[in-house]
Amino acid sequence: MKIAVLGTGMVGNALGTKLVELGHEVTMGSRRANNEKALQWAKPLGARARSATFADATTFGEIVFNCTGGAHSMEALETVGPEPLRGKILIDVSNPLQQADDGSMIMAFCNTDSLGERIQKAFPSTRVVKGLNTVNCEVMVNPSLVPGDHNLFICGNDAPAKKEVIDHLSAWFGWKPENIIDLGDITAARGTEMMMPLWMRLFQGVIGHPHFNYHIIRGR
Amino acid sequence: MKIAVLGTGMVGNALGTKLVELGHEVTMGSRRANNEKALQWAKPLGARARSATFADATTFGEIVFNCTGGAHSMEALETVGPEPLRGKILIDVSNPLQQADDGSMIMAFCNTDSLGERIQKAFPSTRVVKGLNTVNCEVMVNPSLVPGDHNLFICGNDAPAKKEVIDHLSAWFGWKPENIIDLGDITAARGTEMMMPLWMRLFQGVIGHPHFNYHIIRGR
Repeated sequence: MKIAVLGTGMVGNALGTKLVELGHEVTMGSRRANNEKALQWAKPLGARARSATFADATTFGEIVFNCTGGAHSMEALETVGPEPLRGKILIDVSNPLQQADDGSMIMAFCNTDSLGERIQKAFPSTRVVKGLNTVNCEVMVNPSLVPGDHNLFICGNDAPAKKEVIDHLSAWFGWKPENIIDLGDITAARGTEMMMPLWMRLFQGVIGHPHFNYHIIRGR
Repeated sequence: MKIAVLGTGMVGNALGTKLVELGHEVTMGSRRANNEKALQWAKPLGARARSATFADATTFGEIVFNCTGGAHSMEALETVGPEPLRGKILIDVSNPLQQADDGSMIMAFCNTDSLGERIQKAFPSTRVVKGLNTVNCEVMVNPSLVPGDHNLFICGNDAPAKKEVIDHLSAWFGWKPENIIDLGDITAARGTEMMMPLWMRLFQGVIGHPHFNYHIIRGR
């Protein structure tokens, strides 16, 4: 499959590398086609890994992962415009985190809005599915780093798109479909993005590494 | 033990009833001493259950549960003032939820602030411990409603107070101490309060009942 991975950070790297290893053709998008980090990412991976602008990468991809910094994703996607995204599934992996004046990480926006909603609103002809944003990028592509059953949350307005994403996450990365919880429409992205402050406390203050996840246990 | 439970809603009812059943003396606090809901709660429980104003209930309690509606907790606690709360542990169970214009439930404040922090700031001589606010009130007092291991999150600035709260939650309600995760200082309340939007989606849209909880699974 031809896949666009927008963003050159840890998340884009982990997803892009795994997808190339699986045999897909992956173009990493960034502001400039000759972005040094994207070129460095592509080099050891061979001909299936390429670097391009956000717009050209998106045009190339049959499916698009948004892994840009969440507080600046809208600016990145504006450089793409609606046409390259029309009709495509965009999996929004990003969280709109920003550094507060005191150095702590806070959400750039939340509660009555979310990045998933902003993207869907700005690109109504794109099939936005929010997902993967509640786990570390190494866990995204290798859920067995966390033992046993644990959950992913997805949401979006397009039910067939969500079904397709669940199939991909299962086939590509090994997530069990029954462990992927569909929260409903894209406004549920508020809930999953707002898990970040707890996630960061668990990561930094309690567990000390990012290989953990939530398992929703149901009672009677 | 003499315990104050502030608030006459579902949460105050569930905690108050369980604590009376355990043999404690519980005074339920509300705006007026003769609050109808508090009187109805107390009536079948016998002499150990009483009703009083927020201030009188707090004066009575050796430990205080804040179960008032989170968006209005500060107003309730202002009617108490600092003296009845001085040196006491206050377990803040509330989430600052309010109804948005479109009917959905949102946080009254979050991200750069939390109810736990507001209470600690307004009552610096009180030992505020945020906790129990991530589970339904029936699960709070009976964690076995959800099978196996699952977690509570607590936070606060006073380490001995958190230790004492862990002991109480274990002895009174049956929470295993190893399943109670200390997230650090009171600013971590942002993280646990911000889990409410996900919790509500799981409750209303996915699971359909409130007897579920998060289990944090740690990998390597």
